[in-house]
Amino acid sequence: MAKTAIETLITLDNPVFKAYLFYNAILVAKMLSMSFLTARQRVAKGVFPNPEDIVLSPKSKIKVDEDVERVRRAHQNDLENITVYMVAAFGFVLTNPSPWLAINLFRAFTFARIAHTLVYAVVVVPQPARAIAFFVGTSVTIYMVAVSLKAFY
Amino acid sequence: MAKTAIETLITLDNPVFKAYLFYNAILVAKMLSMSFLTARQRVAKGVFPNPEDIVLSPKSKIKVDEDVERVRRAHQNDLENITVYMVAAFGFVLTNPSPWLAINLFRAFTFARIAHTLVYAVVVVPQPARAIAFFVGTSVTIYMVAVSLKAFY
Amino acid sequence: MAKTAIETLITLDNPVFKAYLFYNAILVAKMLSMSFLTARQRVAKGVFPNPEDIVLSPKSKIKVDEDVERVRRAHQNDLENITVYMVAAFGFVLTNPSPWLAINLFRAFTFARIAHTLVYAVVVVPQPARAIAFFVGTSVTIYMVAVSLKAFY
Repeated sequence: MAKTAIETLITLDNPVFKAYLFYNAILVAKMLSMSFLTARQRVAKGVFPNPEDIVLSPKSKIKVDEDVERVRRAHQNDLENITVYMVAAFGFVLTNPSPWLAINLFRAFTFARIAHTLVYAVVVVPQPARAIAFFVGTSVTIYMVAVSLKAFY
Repeated sequence: MAKTAIETLITLDNPVFKAYLFYNAILVAKMLSMSFLTARQRVAKGVFPNPEDIVLSPKSKIKVDEDVERVRRAHQNDLENITVYMVAAFGFVLTNPSPWLAINLFRAFTFARIAHTLVYAVVVVPQPARAIAFFVGTSVTIYMVAVSLKAFY
Repeated sequence: MAKTAIETLITLDNPVFKAYLFYNAILVAKMLSMSFLTARQRVAKGVFPNPEDIVLSPKSKIKVDEDVERVRRAHQNDLENITVYMVAAFGFVLTNPSPWLAINLFRAFTFARIAHTLVYAVVVVPQPARAIAFFVGTSVTIYMVAVSLKAFY
């Protein structure tokens, strides 16, 4: 890569950095929504993890429910994949990538992760829908890691 | 927001950025303490997850214990909420917020998350104590995300 | 610490910041590999968490398998420890540490976490191998947090 003063990279005048921050905000909102999706399933099914959670609704039970666990697995998959993407993408921004490529990678990752949740925990779609969404997102992160390793070695 | 050179934001001369880093350090310490809280419960109850963990204490068992799981759920809730806050707050700092507002939001989030752990996993306090702590923290993150989406669009 | 303009810290001319980004990329790659390690175990043992995952391999079952859970616990331990390290190390870079110390702390953490996975989920090594790997990594993070708290107070 051409050597570039980092002051021109970590600035809102850099459309790549600004897009990075924008899609981060979208992804944070998407991850927060998983808590509410879990809560909705818990209330709908009347299942909670702690004794103190059920005092106000005597029909509720402390047990494991498959529909709740499905949402929790989707949330866990977000934790495993989105946080590392955010770290990888921060490094990638500092490699001074092509704005067109970088912004479309942010978009592809974000759309893939939203699709992952939709087909996993909102409307269950047969495989390989979820596998494809997973691999699109992971491929973006792997690409960013590879570029970073080369740039920062 | 008034357009501000980012050099005046990502610097320790900016009290907001400095406070962001300070409360991040507090929150990292708080999250690390969950591992020790889990370990303390495991030793106290003599329950471990792996066969290799129990060779030195023959009375221990490989099983799931409710008191251990409670601490682990509190730790998981930290992972789900604190890491996304840190990302959201980084973006929020770059929107050039009012220092008074920003620093008090960092404090509110940090106190809410410490309270969340105390009422969840140290001394179990009846609901809605934990729900309130959760919603204070989540509200801070949602506000930061909303301001970021507007600023970086 | 000597007061230093942050422009000299958040730049690729700062060997500490560049090393931070390099070891971040290694750690992201390491964390991503856990998904593939889990998938390999699931396929080898024929166990999956969702009904839609087993339609293509009729011999597979939806059940919990100890070898899969072991890899998942190693992955969870990464989530609990590596993401907070990345946040702590970002703050630590901004305290203007000695390059020799900082770069060796990044290396120690990275090697400790790779060792942690190897002895936990690839070849099971008797304790205290895993405990040592855990404490080396956690000690690095705690040191960085302590330095940050002092610097940003």
